[in-house]
Amino acid sequence: MKKRVSLIAIGDELLSGKIRDENLFYAVNKLTSLGIEVVEERIIGDDEKSIISALKSASSVADFVLVSGGLGPTEDDRTRRAVSKLLKKKLILKKDVLKALSERFEKRGLPMPLSNRNQALFPEGAKVIPNPVGTAPGFSVRYKKSQIFFLPGVPSEFKIMLEDVIKRIGKGKSLRTKRFRIFGIPESGIADKLNGFSDLFKECKIAFLPSFPENIVDISVLSRDEKRAEKIINEAGEWIKERIGDFIYSEGETLPEVIGKLLREMGFKIATAESCTGGLVSSLITDVPGSSDYFKGGIVSYWYEAKSNLLGVDSEFLEKNGAVNERVAIDMAEGALKALNVDIALSTTGILGPGKGGEREEVGTLFAGIAWKGGELSKKFFFPLGDRRAKKIIFSYFALDSLRRFLLSEKRMRDSKEVIEKAKKEGIAFIKKCRNGKNPLFFFITANPPTRAHREILIEAVKTYPHDEVVVMLDIYHADKSVEEASLEERMEMLRIAFDGVPNLSIGISSKGLFVEKLDLIREVWKSEKITFLAGMDTMVRILSPAFYQDPDLAFKKLFENSGFIVAERKDMDEKKIEEIFRERNLERYLNKIKVLKIPSSLKDISSTEVRERIKRNEPVSDLLPQGVEEFIRERKLYKG
Amino acid sequence: MKKRVSLIAIGDELLSGKIRDENLFYAVNKLTSLGIEVVEERIIGDDEKSIISALKSASSVADFVLVSGGLGPTEDDRTRRAVSKLLKKKLILKKDVLKALSERFEKRGLPMPLSNRNQALFPEGAKVIPNPVGTAPGFSVRYKKSQIFFLPGVPSEFKIMLEDVIKRIGKGKSLRTKRFRIFGIPESGIADKLNGFSDLFKECKIAFLPSFPENIVDISVLSRDEKRAEKIINEAGEWIKERIGDFIYSEGETLPEVIGKLLREMGFKIATAESCTGGLVSSLITDVPGSSDYFKGGIVSYWYEAKSNLLGVDSEFLEKNGAVNERVAIDMAEGALKALNVDIALSTTGILGPGKGGEREEVGTLFAGIAWKGGELSKKFFFPLGDRRAKKIIFSYFALDSLRRFLLSEKRMRDSKEVIEKAKKEGIAFIKKCRNGKNPLFFFITANPPTRAHREILIEAVKTYPHDEVVVMLDIYHADKSVEEASLEERMEMLRIAFDGVPNLSIGISSKGLFVEKLDLIREVWKSEKITFLAGMDTMVRILSPAFYQDPDLAFKKLFENSGFIVAERKDMDEKKIEEIFRERNLERYLNKIKVLKIPSSLKDISSTEVRERIKRNEPVSDLLPQGVEEFIRERKLYKG
Repeated sequence: MKKRVSLIAIGDELLSGKIRDENLFYAVNKLTSLGIEVVEERIIGDDEKSIISALKSASSVADFVLVSGGLGPTEDDRTRRAVSKLLKKKLILKKDVLKALSERFEKRGLPMPLSNRNQALFPEGAKVIPNPVGTAPGFSVRYKKSQIFFLPGVPSEFKIMLEDVIKRIGKGKSLRTKRFRIFGIPESGIADKLNGFSDLFKECKIAFLPSFPENIVDISVLSRDEKRAEKIINEAGEWIKERIGDFIYSEGETLPEVIGKLLREMGFKIATAESCTGGLVSSLITDVPGSSDYFKGGIVSYWYEAKSNLLGVDSEFLEKNGAVNERVAIDMAEGALKALNVDIALSTTGILGPGKGGEREEVGTLFAGIAWKGGELSKKFFFPLGDRRAKKIIFSYFALDSLRRFLLSEKRMRDSKEVIEKAKKEGIAFIKKCRNGKNPLFFFITANPPTRAHREILIEAVKTYPHDEVVVMLDIYHADKSVEEASLEERMEMLRIAFDGVPNLSIGISSKGLFVEKLDLIREVWKSEKITFLAGMDTMVRILSPAFYQDPDLAFKKLFENSGFIVAERKDMDEKKIEEIFRERNLERYLNKIKVLKIPSSLKDISSTEVRERIKRNEPVSDLLPQGVEEFIRERKLYKG
Repeated sequence: MKKRVSLIAIGDELLSGKIRDENLFYAVNKLTSLGIEVVEERIIGDDEKSIISALKSASSVADFVLVSGGLGPTEDDRTRRAVSKLLKKKLILKKDVLKALSERFEKRGLPMPLSNRNQALFPEGAKVIPNPVGTAPGFSVRYKKSQIFFLPGVPSEFKIMLEDVIKRIGKGKSLRTKRFRIFGIPESGIADKLNGFSDLFKECKIAFLPSFPENIVDISVLSRDEKRAEKIINEAGEWIKERIGDFIYSEGETLPEVIGKLLREMGFKIATAESCTGGLVSSLITDVPGSSDYFKGGIVSYWYEAKSNLLGVDSEFLEKNGAVNERVAIDMAEGALKALNVDIALSTTGILGPGKGGEREEVGTLFAGIAWKGGELSKKFFFPLGDRRAKKIIFSYFALDSLRRFLLSEKRMRDSKEVIEKAKKEGIAFIKKCRNGKNPLFFFITANPPTRAHREILIEAVKTYPHDEVVVMLDIYHADKSVEEASLEERMEMLRIAFDGVPNLSIGISSKGLFVEKLDLIREVWKSEKITFLAGMDTMVRILSPAFYQDPDLAFKKLFENSGFIVAERKDMDEKKIEEIFRERNLERYLNKIKVLKIPSSLKDISSTEVRERIKRNEPVSDLLPQGVEEFIRERKLYKG
């Protein structure tokens, strides 16, 4: 049965308009996120009559009544007396509580004021709720069919003791929670991505807390079995992380704190160059204690004059083209990089409104720039909603989040260097292992670059033939090192971006060319599981070519007896074609190991080669690539030849 | 009899933890500030049973029940039906409301959805409360001894319609309000200064709203007589302004908005140079729409390196003395003045903590610097409370408020130029006229500079001999123009600062030397009132000197028959001495026009000459001057010779 809770806050000061209740708001959030229904909230004055009448009426509609406040030593104990009258039970002094109270005062070298004795008085039969942080313990009593809990009104004490009450409401269950802080997608977008959560994790409650300009998703499990609660919350957490991907910027820390950590890890010193955000970006960065370790300073260049004098932005260009464009964003960041002698600089230039101030772009447009010792990039954002202050905040977050993503890429690329070396030596290595699936699907790609087809074929394959783990492997055997291609670290990063948000994803690197060799190495990790490879039809044809093997028959036997293939159609290569080839090679006995994946014809034309050629010809490629990959290539100026 | 109000918010969403009620909090503030007692607040779900039970219980404890929400078109009209059941009255369609509703839709070219028809349904006998901004009108009904008001839950609609309800609670009274935004004194300090307000202005309610880092004081009058309400609120407002003085920075605008206005009025362009505030000062300045008109840019110099490279602060000095001191604050401001080519620059350098980062000062210390084309100044602040973020905010406000006060002084000095010219031509002119008192006291000083004695003698005089107006006049006849003295504008400003917060104060300028001449000019403004002069005993002796007059007898007759004198004792000059002089001059018949003011001997030694001499000798003068005057002299480097 669903628990119904009624909340009461006691305190004249709460009805004076001077102090706002925080406890009930906190409690309603917490309780509803656990699936406990709050049927009423009430704020009443500190007098016996009001207290008695509120307790009566609350307990008539709820299974549990939770009362905040009215337990302080100076409050003349009206709450205690009201409860005593309501229950017709006298107040008795609990000696152990009194002892603990006076010891508390002793420790601080203070005599205990007489009034604090009141705090050891409880209606006969009440259960004491210990207060780990303050003087006043809480208590609980039964009244008619309800359980009533009394907690002190001091918010820090109330919040901690609420956990105790929640356990009592849940009868000895323990609570596990996780928080995800998300920036860059609206609440509705998050809800879409997490569709199905409640069916999959029935015991796990989920709560969305919009907290402009970000979103917070809290999940919690209340269970008698601590280990079980832990397991569920972890699985639910992983499920959410897979679906929201890099939009989750932390599980608790603020965005500037996350950036601070990344800067420390990379050993980078940073500076800012701000126009429209007017100093808010640097102010956010310096909200973090210790930020002076990595933040050297910033320049707020509001006027063109300041942009050219302090940051070296070309003043003729500004006069002609205005300040809100990619070029100025980049020049500002480069100006700050030099002027402040740092490793990385972040810039903002945009239009807050209400007026456009002669700029060409619309109100709500922002360009954020990043310059570092190896290059520079810029990103465009558009957010026309809200007032000037709201736009300033979200613009600052856009810029900071761009920086976070850049630093994350840099850090991952640095970290993947080691894994690549390991793969070169040992043939195989892993970046991320989501689990040991019973039925894993392997997808080897050279990721030079990974295309929209790669991502969609993988998703289609899992939809058509379910697998409990998806292992995308960067294939570096084929990595020839011509100048116009991306480095292995860059490919690894593009691969991660391309498959961001794919459920049950593991990522690895392989340096072996032949699928029989790959199979051997995979077998060392997935010992007895059913191995399946996902491959394009052209790859399948190459696998079947006898020229690659000393003893083709043996090789094919080993490969097909120990693994299966999902083969994606390509242009001019359909199911019939593959059967034909198997027959030609006298391998039709293995055809039962082959499943053909039909894919939309629009995907069949997409190839990494096509992407590279278009980029060389300065043609758009956004139709060929996952959005993040296209951005990465553009920002890092890859494949320009 | 005091009115008792109970507040109810209806809405499942308010009990879901996702949306926080704002209406009840707004209403409780508003109502209590008007002296209306709120006895209970309640948030309930959107179901008939809860609504009926809450209405019953609320009306049993209150004269008025105010309900927010539950009137929307899609809410299936549970509130209306609940009220209809409670009152046993059927719902009837009000045709005029329906007509107004459909016209509203027509105007926007939309068909009216059928569900909106519900909004024209009211329990029989209900009075409609018009909604000037939305579709749903409110209504009121009587239930037992209470009046129940139903308003829509949309905050913008609720707030406007609440004014209507307040009038009904106050039965046709009209409400006048004033708001004062105050920075620089704590709430308790404000309360001290406003002690006695409620006795003086019995019909005027006062509310303190702490709003970190500032304080807000709201006053309001609810009266049947609009003109009377207007008069009371204005008098109460003036009374408060006199007592809080320049700590009041606005009657509505934010601090950055006030600064923006002052900068525009002075035609100044501004820049910032921030260290500890990390960009928050420039961010606050640029929160104001149109701030790009006067804000050119800023430099956030977090590292010493940035302070010396970008702002030209001496790096050896930094290494030796740290960055948190007056010299660095001033050098930073001057650096920004040059680097950004502005008229005025504001700097901050301080220690937020938690660590001291090797600085000498304590955590919580701030130096703010101001540099302008004519000079520079710095101020030291100390605020060790709160976390890093709180300190950043209050530090930024300290700096901005210093800037506001500087700009205010500059503006007043510029404005007083004209008044000084007028006084030179016409003999007398006024800067500020508080009223035409029946019993004014005139105090002529040269204010070169005004001392603590001047202020305290005036206050003592009014305490001993009550006057309904106090007119302090800058006496410029005696103003000789040696270089080491302050300009007339500076003296005028010092005079204003010295007497800031004195009740019933008027301020003027006089260019006539003789008191008979002064009297003539005063008579043109105060025609038939009883004129009293406040003077030091030395001035009195000078007045009695026959050498100043062509016809001394006539002059003394005119002077003493038309005015009286309060004469303050000086060193070696007591009551006996003055009687002696009157007798010597054969003027004992006028002795009844003279009242002697006893003053503490500590004040008798204080003179403007002493102040100037000490400053020349680089000795401290804070014991001789009102605090603001001492700061002004130090900041403007006056009397340095």
